[in-house]
Amino acid sequence: METIVVFGLGLIGGSMALALKNENRMLIGVDNNETNANKALELGIVNRLGTLQDVANADVVIVAVPVNFAPELTLKVLDLINPKTLVFDVGSVKSAICKAVKNHPKRINFVAAHPIAGTEYSGPEAAFKQLFINKKNIICESNKSGNIFLKKALNLFDALQMTTTFMEAKAHDRHIAYVSHLSHISSFMLGKTVLEIEKDEKSIFTMAGSGFASTVRLSKSSPSTWTPIFIQNKDNILKSLEEYIKNLNQFKELLKQEAEADLYKSMKSTHHLKNILSEIK
Amino acid sequence: METIVVFGLGLIGGSMALALKNENRMLIGVDNNETNANKALELGIVNRLGTLQDVANADVVIVAVPVNFAPELTLKVLDLINPKTLVFDVGSVKSAICKAVKNHPKRINFVAAHPIAGTEYSGPEAAFKQLFINKKNIICESNKSGNIFLKKALNLFDALQMTTTFMEAKAHDRHIAYVSHLSHISSFMLGKTVLEIEKDEKSIFTMAGSGFASTVRLSKSSPSTWTPIFIQNKDNILKSLEEYIKNLNQFKELLKQEAEADLYKSMKSTHHLKNILSEIK
Repeated sequence: METIVVFGLGLIGGSMALALKNENRMLIGVDNNETNANKALELGIVNRLGTLQDVANADVVIVAVPVNFAPELTLKVLDLINPKTLVFDVGSVKSAICKAVKNHPKRINFVAAHPIAGTEYSGPEAAFKQLFINKKNIICESNKSGNIFLKKALNLFDALQMTTTFMEAKAHDRHIAYVSHLSHISSFMLGKTVLEIEKDEKSIFTMAGSGFASTVRLSKSSPSTWTPIFIQNKDNILKSLEEYIKNLNQFKELLKQEAEADLYKSMKSTHHLKNILSEIK
Repeated sequence: METIVVFGLGLIGGSMALALKNENRMLIGVDNNETNANKALELGIVNRLGTLQDVANADVVIVAVPVNFAPELTLKVLDLINPKTLVFDVGSVKSAICKAVKNHPKRINFVAAHPIAGTEYSGPEAAFKQLFINKKNIICESNKSGNIFLKKALNLFDALQMTTTFMEAKAHDRHIAYVSHLSHISSFMLGKTVLEIEKDEKSIFTMAGSGFASTVRLSKSSPSTWTPIFIQNKDNILKSLEEYIKNLNQFKELLKQEAEADLYKSMKSTHHLKNILSEIK
């Protein structure tokens, strides 16, 4: 019987527990939020609830708590595990956690992972076991993980039907700012802008169609998850945000001048995305 | 046999022709783009291709050309039709066309409509007859349309399974800037920002997930359709764009200061959208 302890029973941790659960595995869940913990147990996401002490007898520990809590928790877990235990996290920012564990005597037991999967929903009720199928996983600083632990982690991600790519933590954080974090901010602020105007224009949402719904979908994401991600990846996000705002301002100026050809060109330039997006699962 | 002439055989005009086509209706298509016109005929979207002169014998004329061509074309159509013909447009901006036809002797034959439906694809190949089912339609300045024509138009939109709401053209254009036009710009510029950074960071799209795909989906929309829409609704869009940029700048400042509680609050404020979005088809 393999014992897996999962910290954080929300969308990601809960889905991972559901996807890995089978008759040969004991899933133990830990969540500071008692309501969520009980909900996860009730939904059959884990076999039982536990505490930090359970990691001493675990084969695998999954850290799926918000990124501001993950580095400290991972250090505590590494202190308590036996030498054969694999520990991995699933956070959307990788530099801070890699830096935190850097000099831990059990650094080799740790794998820094980012399974790129999610929905705009959160909490154990949002968890489902197919979440990771055909999605991408990034492992950072893999040379700092022991081979046996890296292999064990890769086997688990294979079982989740994910494709894993390797990357330095700094490159990961720089890239993910553009293709994930910025999308969330643009969506949150679009939602905010439209809600503000709705105060004066009550009927505005009777006109919202599927295009609006798609663009603001991410604004339904959990602020508790995303606030610490934005803060932890601040420098990269500020850079991407500045470039986004610069492009919006340029577009605004072109529109002011009714510069038809330039507006057209500016939009046409993104059409290369068609091919890229068709490959995104 | 009812004769319907459709100008513009792209996503909207083509889908409408497909949805209305039956054994009692003759659908005649007109499109300046010869390739598109032939494609529409080949795909069975219309029964035959025609010219402006065909409107003289039409029961219904649908103007589904880009909004910069629609006012002038509608005036020409109104000049040529017989007194019983219904003419309606489907454009995403309504003030300009309402103003153009205002004093035409056959103004009562015209209905200014905006069926709010679409996808990010364009051209006759993108057309499909279910596009309008359960979607919203807006009719503007309905008091300027003759009762018989308004009724006929409503019957057609009912046949498309749309729900129609009535609105003044100015209110329509102000609202739609927020819930549709701004979404398109935010998406186009997000795509542009990420493509620009990709020049230096080649592997960036290996990390793009479904959240990114959803947020930039609209950037695949046709620049030929959207450039004239943005220009025609310039004043309203500039206002919405300024508010959006203001919110992004505020968010950027909060992030710079790592103002955790305020960032959280700013994102939490959009959560009311959850309920609204769940009602959007």
